[in-house]
Amino acid sequence: MKLALIGVGLIGGSAAAAWRATGGVGYVTGYDLDSGAAERGRALGVIDATATTIAQVVEGADLVLVAVPVLAMRAVFAEVAEHAAVHAVITDVGSTKVSVLDAARDGLARGDKLLFRRFVPGHPIAGRELPGVEFADAQLFRGKLVITTPDDETDADATTLIESLWQRSGARIARMDAVEHDRIFAAVSHLPHLLAFGLVASIASEADGDRKLQFAGAGFRDFTRIAASSPAMWRDVCLANRATLGTELQRYRDLLERLQQAIGAGDAAFLERTFAVASDARRRHAPTLDAE
Amino acid sequence: MKLALIGVGLIGGSAAAAWRATGGVGYVTGYDLDSGAAERGRALGVIDATATTIAQVVEGADLVLVAVPVLAMRAVFAEVAEHAAVHAVITDVGSTKVSVLDAARDGLARGDKLLFRRFVPGHPIAGRELPGVEFADAQLFRGKLVITTPDDETDADATTLIESLWQRSGARIARMDAVEHDRIFAAVSHLPHLLAFGLVASIASEADGDRKLQFAGAGFRDFTRIAASSPAMWRDVCLANRATLGTELQRYRDLLERLQQAIGAGDAAFLERTFAVASDARRRHAPTLDAE
Repeated sequence: MKLALIGVGLIGGSAAAAWRATGGVGYVTGYDLDSGAAERGRALGVIDATATTIAQVVEGADLVLVAVPVLAMRAVFAEVAEHAAVHAVITDVGSTKVSVLDAARDGLARGDKLLFRRFVPGHPIAGRELPGVEFADAQLFRGKLVITTPDDETDADATTLIESLWQRSGARIARMDAVEHDRIFAAVSHLPHLLAFGLVASIASEADGDRKLQFAGAGFRDFTRIAASSPAMWRDVCLANRATLGTELQRYRDLLERLQQAIGAGDAAFLERTFAVASDARRRHAPTLDAE
Repeated sequence: MKLALIGVGLIGGSAAAAWRATGGVGYVTGYDLDSGAAERGRALGVIDATATTIAQVVEGADLVLVAVPVLAMRAVFAEVAEHAAVHAVITDVGSTKVSVLDAARDGLARGDKLLFRRFVPGHPIAGRELPGVEFADAQLFRGKLVITTPDDETDADATTLIESLWQRSGARIARMDAVEHDRIFAAVSHLPHLLAFGLVASIASEADGDRKLQFAGAGFRDFTRIAASSPAMWRDVCLANRATLGTELQRYRDLLERLQQAIGAGDAAFLERTFAVASDARRRHAPTLDAE
């Protein structure tokens, strides 16, 4: 099976490498807006050949993996629809799913090919904080979760193909509704990224920010690891899931306001109660979280 | 040298174990409000004997280590002052230093012993998210930083003794002013703990909080690891450093408000610019942070 990879970065490159390692994919052609990234992917053996246009990369492809920032997907889908084979199965690795399904319904419906039915939305819950195909790793998905959010119209054989590629790469599949996906990941992924970016940006922009960061310990290291992630990717995630993320952020800001009042008023009981709710929940979920 | 440990928990227990492993300390007596903690510490060999009062634990001690929540220190110091030997050196491991110095100036000045001069404020930048003497580890401080904030009145030989005990346990020493300490750690430690506790508490208190937490990945795991820390310890830290932490928290809340406006308005440029400042700073400091 021939794979067209659109977006030669950490996740797309890792998926291509993983799917090839299992024998599910035999040949990979890659396209990236940044032709240097595609070239590095080829030099590293993550892809076999580079293409200079989307038309060229999808030519003859049985499988198209779209691994670009989520707000760039609409335009990519429209080009894919113009050039992909009728039988091609298309999937993505975006961190939001409602906006991606909308973009696919719009972009992939063009022409008479009805490629939208061949589109299987996916989201591997795996990553590294350092973006770029240089960090691609065929083992990245081993033991990790991949969420799929197929539409009612999605062809069952297309969903089966994509889920089996992920499973053969060592991942577990959880299938759910796109709306629920975006609600869950607004809370446990999108908001934490926003908060971590915000904290490091806030400290770094202080006059003595560098001196402060020099004294940071292991707690800060872990808390801010995700703040090294790709700014462009997370800019798009925040905007693509803006309504749901906005609700979670407002809820969190309300709690911070209440915590600030408690600190100002010396309300030890409220602080301890809030911290204990968190500490209990974090320890209760530790077996799942810390097993990864 | 005989050590009196007041507060038989993760950090106090680890320090006792580390100092004994280097030969600097020969015998350890431990006291804890929770007599079960002291008993477990003795059963684990972290301490040699338990005491039932502060008067008893400091009897004959050359060295007193106070490892209790920072707002409990004032009362502990007052009792230590009543009973400790004149030559005893006293130190602590609290995460705030201005309030601890104030408490020591007040508590240790009682009587005519002038024990305040024998008090060396310390703060090891090391820990584990799981509190309790069960997790004490003599190797915990290896390669880590210990901040000391001696006062102008502190005896030089007392400071030298404490710093050498930490150094022989594998730690590096940074000596600084208590005010600067509290400013730095409000930003890189106290605020991150508050934010992590707040996020987990916010999600856990939602109706579908447990389902959301089940899908959390490695990014969330790292971001929230510190939210499993001791609620009572961090309640005290937040209150003991309330003015400085309050300033940092307000600054952060202002940025979150601006980020929420940007998400609502679709201001991609502001989001990307803020995320890029953070990402650049986090990667620039990665060699220090991730080396730990």
